[in-house]
Amino acid sequence: MLLPAAMFNEPTMTPQQPNDVSASTARLIALDWGTTNLRALLLDEAGETLAERHTPAGILNVQLGRFEDALRSLCADWLGDPAVVVMASGMIGSRQGWVEAPYLQAPTTPDAAAAALTRVQLSRGAKLHLIPGIACINGIHAEAVDDVMRGEETQVWGADLPDNATVILPGTHSKWVRCGPSGSILSCRTWMTGELFAVLSQHSILGRLMASGAGSAHAFELGATRGLHAPELLTTLLFSVRTAGLMNRIEPHALPDYLSGLLIGAEVAAAQRSGPERVTPIDQRHDSSASVTAAEISPCVYLVGEPALCGRYAAVLGLAGQRSVTLDGALAARGAWRIANAAGLLQPGH
Amino acid sequence: MLLPAAMFNEPTMTPQQPNDVSASTARLIALDWGTTNLRALLLDEAGETLAERHTPAGILNVQLGRFEDALRSLCADWLGDPAVVVMASGMIGSRQGWVEAPYLQAPTTPDAAAAALTRVQLSRGAKLHLIPGIACINGIHAEAVDDVMRGEETQVWGADLPDNATVILPGTHSKWVRCGPSGSILSCRTWMTGELFAVLSQHSILGRLMASGAGSAHAFELGATRGLHAPELLTTLLFSVRTAGLMNRIEPHALPDYLSGLLIGAEVAAAQRSGPERVTPIDQRHDSSASVTAAEISPCVYLVGEPALCGRYAAVLGLAGQRSVTLDGALAARGAWRIANAAGLLQPGH
Repeated sequence: MLLPAAMFNEPTMTPQQPNDVSASTARLIALDWGTTNLRALLLDEAGETLAERHTPAGILNVQLGRFEDALRSLCADWLGDPAVVVMASGMIGSRQGWVEAPYLQAPTTPDAAAAALTRVQLSRGAKLHLIPGIACINGIHAEAVDDVMRGEETQVWGADLPDNATVILPGTHSKWVRCGPSGSILSCRTWMTGELFAVLSQHSILGRLMASGAGSAHAFELGATRGLHAPELLTTLLFSVRTAGLMNRIEPHALPDYLSGLLIGAEVAAAQRSGPERVTPIDQRHDSSASVTAAEISPCVYLVGEPALCGRYAAVLGLAGQRSVTLDGALAARGAWRIANAAGLLQPGH
Repeated sequence: MLLPAAMFNEPTMTPQQPNDVSASTARLIALDWGTTNLRALLLDEAGETLAERHTPAGILNVQLGRFEDALRSLCADWLGDPAVVVMASGMIGSRQGWVEAPYLQAPTTPDAAAAALTRVQLSRGAKLHLIPGIACINGIHAEAVDDVMRGEETQVWGADLPDNATVILPGTHSKWVRCGPSGSILSCRTWMTGELFAVLSQHSILGRLMASGAGSAHAFELGATRGLHAPELLTTLLFSVRTAGLMNRIEPHALPDYLSGLLIGAEVAAAQRSGPERVTPIDQRHDSSASVTAAEISPCVYLVGEPALCGRYAAVLGLAGQRSVTLDGALAARGAWRIANAAGLLQPGH
């Protein structure tokens, strides 16, 4: 259970007390350190979670040069054990973070990430290992653009995925990650869906007619249907948030859901239709051959993120005939554990 | 010449003095009254401009209930002549304006607008005639959405266009207006291109790497080429404003032009590919028949708006193989004059 205080300043922790867990089996502190939050998990040698804490000390909320203070105020007690390895993923390794950790270039693998950790010396002997983000370098021609991610790669590596999976990580910047065999990551593509929703709701004319109140699954589905139908028309469909309000077709409290549907629908349709992240919808894969496995008939994409938002994506993917599975669990920590293992950091006596 | 003061509070005027022009021939005050500006032209019976004034007293800058004060402070002297008709177009007729003037429903004509003027009694005997905006009612199905405009219809009616013209009015909300014969307006479609540029530059992560300074035609063309190539990918192309900055592919001062190109390119490509505003690019219209006229071989779209912005659209249309002509002149006033004539308001003794 999240304590309300966790939304503000005080770190929270799972019921285990620090003195219980730091004794014998703790081997890894995994930090998922993004722009707005810092989440720390203490794991044992098998990658099982012993304790978990979080705080809003994301990189935008911490003064430059004060990152170690922020870390110690969350888990100084964990850092006291020299046998415990510290790993971090996310924007903490960006130019605006603690130290810039150079990107790995896609396609890449967990082993390559393990060989490219950026080490930061902490003040009392411990070391922090920054997991690199991934850059997809596509040049400056019309057909493809460069893309980057930091943190999502570690979440993907923390999931137990079949070969050639497509993973969608919805959020401020929604990422579609295409994997190859054996945990390799082939490419990623970023969609500004979440940030567009925020800036349009808060700063554009579309927010003027919106009201808070109960959401509307119907308005969400109408928006999603329109976005799926014509993603290239998004900047004109967006204006229909205003006309639908002006003409009383959609209630003010349902307009945010309508906008959300338009944006997610356009993202899903465009991603399905184009580029290497393409996944074939179920209804185009029917095959009478008895040798086709269920997985081949009905390929699946994997969703990783905040459950309510993943639910929106699952609904839109369903409208598009695409099966999805939402993954949960401490994927970033599990991914950090996997990289630490690949780097040999968890071997006895390391 | 615009006096610098015109940017703030004081109305400006053309060299004619009020006492010179209100004497014999003045017949119409045409108000182009939008969200941020009020522009007033004094016209004679032939529609020629006698004087022009403007002020930033757009409807968002005037207190509700104080619209007549705003009007009188700009042109009280013109209003003193009972023979002078007062017409207004634009957002002044919206729910947030002086009086809500019901929309005409497309398709419609200047005569229909003339028959649907909303009259507002002014305090000293004069009447203000509000020109209705136009609504395109398309229902709530997936394929088409409702759309509206207020003011652009009057600009279109002020232009001397051939039948079946397509007019683009770039701006905060870019409008594509499809005309039929004899000045009829068949439909309009709004693209949020200008507002997206503003909110993304000012309020999203894309503005973080931008710097002011010299623009870049090269960055604009790169963005436009990408937007034209794949309008359905806009929300992922937008993120390339960030990656292009991160990877030093585009200079910080050139990023605004790159973003502008992406947005206008996506608008033009999507409008060309879809919907009733479709215009066939030149290179798909070649025909060996000697009877094909130049206009048929090379159809033209018309641009109306701020010259630098129209220049951007003309450049992108050119990249897409589409010829365009930018119209200038006092189109809103000329359109108001046309409606006033159709309504019989300029006949002697009216």
